[in-house]
Amino acid sequence: MQAHVEGDRVRLGERGRERFYDARGYGHPVNGGLHLSRVEAAHLLYRGDLDTVDGMGFRAFLENADGLASRFLVYKDLRDRGFYLTPAREGWVDSPAGVDFIVYPRGDGPWDDAVAYRVRVVAEQEPIAASALGDVVLAVVDEESELTYLETVRPEVSGTAPTSTDHEAEAVLLEDRVLVWEPPAALHDEGFYGQPMGENCDALQLSLVEAAYLADCDALLMPAGREAILTRGREAEGERFDRRLAVYASLRARGVVPKTGFKFGADFRTYAAVSSVDDVGHSERLVRVLSPDHTFQPRELSLDVRLAHGVRKEMAFALTEGRVADLGTGPDVDWLVARRLTP
Amino acid sequence: MQAHVEGDRVRLGERGRERFYDARGYGHPVNGGLHLSRVEAAHLLYRGDLDTVDGMGFRAFLENADGLASRFLVYKDLRDRGFYLTPAREGWVDSPAGVDFIVYPRGDGPWDDAVAYRVRVVAEQEPIAASALGDVVLAVVDEESELTYLETVRPEVSGTAPTSTDHEAEAVLLEDRVLVWEPPAALHDEGFYGQPMGENCDALQLSLVEAAYLADCDALLMPAGREAILTRGREAEGERFDRRLAVYASLRARGVVPKTGFKFGADFRTYAAVSSVDDVGHSERLVRVLSPDHTFQPRELSLDVRLAHGVRKEMAFALTEGRVADLGTGPDVDWLVARRLTP
Repeated sequence: MQAHVEGDRVRLGERGRERFYDARGYGHPVNGGLHLSRVEAAHLLYRGDLDTVDGMGFRAFLENADGLASRFLVYKDLRDRGFYLTPAREGWVDSPAGVDFIVYPRGDGPWDDAVAYRVRVVAEQEPIAASALGDVVLAVVDEESELTYLETVRPEVSGTAPTSTDHEAEAVLLEDRVLVWEPPAALHDEGFYGQPMGENCDALQLSLVEAAYLADCDALLMPAGREAILTRGREAEGERFDRRLAVYASLRARGVVPKTGFKFGADFRTYAAVSSVDDVGHSERLVRVLSPDHTFQPRELSLDVRLAHGVRKEMAFALTEGRVADLGTGPDVDWLVARRLTP
Repeated sequence: MQAHVEGDRVRLGERGRERFYDARGYGHPVNGGLHLSRVEAAHLLYRGDLDTVDGMGFRAFLENADGLASRFLVYKDLRDRGFYLTPAREGWVDSPAGVDFIVYPRGDGPWDDAVAYRVRVVAEQEPIAASALGDVVLAVVDEESELTYLETVRPEVSGTAPTSTDHEAEAVLLEDRVLVWEPPAALHDEGFYGQPMGENCDALQLSLVEAAYLADCDALLMPAGREAILTRGREAEGERFDRRLAVYASLRARGVVPKTGFKFGADFRTYAAVSSVDDVGHSERLVRVLSPDHTFQPRELSLDVRLAHGVRKEMAFALTEGRVADLGTGPDVDWLVARRLTP
């Protein structure tokens, strides 16, 4: 069968519509025939189901069409996995903005209502704005033309840890930590704050973020005060400190306990349900704190998601301006989770 | 027992020398007594082995001495693990430059010649120049005062893969890949280049880095030529492309096969011994390509090392200026490996 280019699409007649749309979910039916997108036409050429488009075979068609190769690879892969999918064009699907393909559940097609995935194709070198993520599956085409699917969602973030801080502890700033020499037992045992120094000494070591939060809750008596902690934190990491503090406070306000994520290369690991310090269980998430205008390199995303997967945690990104004046009411944080997906 | 501050050290008499140096490897013996560094004095105070230093107990001594807390935590941890160690001071140990402690093998002490680890203490927020690594163990003190040890070494990089490229293939640049429509079988099967497109088509997809290297070896016939590939690569990732190409060429020249490391968030994964494309085995290393003047954030290092460990690979950093003119002779690349260490 032969087809013809018509503007930015490829045209087939009634027989094409019966054969490719009705039976196999390609294209968008129009009066008296079928419109295919170029990526669909390329796939039919690749399979040998179409002979030519305006005289071009698969090779000529692919070389002739700018920016088609990556989308073709993803389209082909999803078809190989048994999905029907439709290019996200205005009028062809609902809500086409920000994605390349609408993928239907296995067994469904464009004539059904259900949607399995909204897929955006990105090249390995292409930066992606964090604001564009949340209800989209990224199909990353790496430099060797292999595919990695990353699902992004906006998660619920909450837990059952106690949110009050009913302590009052004398503390002193010591380099990049705060020491509580005689800590109330509840601070560590019930609040899960700090790290004991060791068997020869009762001191509890708080991170600057923990200490700044506790100082904000009036739970620390410190000669130098909260401002000294903020100053020290900002000296070490600039505005990142404020951002991390805002996320820390937001998590605590939601009943989630954040501890350092350093061993996993993250800002925090988090526990949604902790009942006793001797049995904190498994932390569910790794958290990376970012500015709301952050753009991801796909390779960074791949690294974080792979690491989190390997330690049976979920990778979460906390996007915030980091206004530490709002700690009490809980600062604004937008949450984003990214996971590997095998469609 | 009581001690006295003497300049930047702490002084004890003969009894102190017998008790702390001869029996337990603290300090540096001097005429008629013993010199302790402040971190050693803090540890003896912490343990209750010293009562006071100029009237100060552990708490006052620690609070009084600037920049001591992190080194104290590392010193204490290594002692707890059963090591004797000496602060790296000129005159106390050989080659003190760039490190904080010389750690002896278990059972050895400062009176022996063997060295187990050269340890540098760094805070989580402290950037580390790549050029300072290679024969040092980093003891990273994270924001919660927990420790992570990262060993850095300069590895041997070589393999047994064939280094010649005895092909000549017609190729075409297609977006961010190069397609060889009718590839010689040896290109993929023996050279391990590229990624086949699929069952309906013989085409082999080369990454831009693979293609640029092959073009440099005169193994590709391309209308657009090697320059077109370099231009496309630089458009996508700037000078990083040249750097990655230099590392790719250097690995190939040493008989090591690099493939994309995207799924691990790295530049390459590498195979040192591949005999058949159907049995490439397990890749041994992940490679991240960096500029020679790179400085690491400890958190980035922790992330890379943790991920590599989780997939049973070694994390290697390739430091290069990336002069692609030298591809044939093998460009200059400095190698650095980082591993988690449990002392």
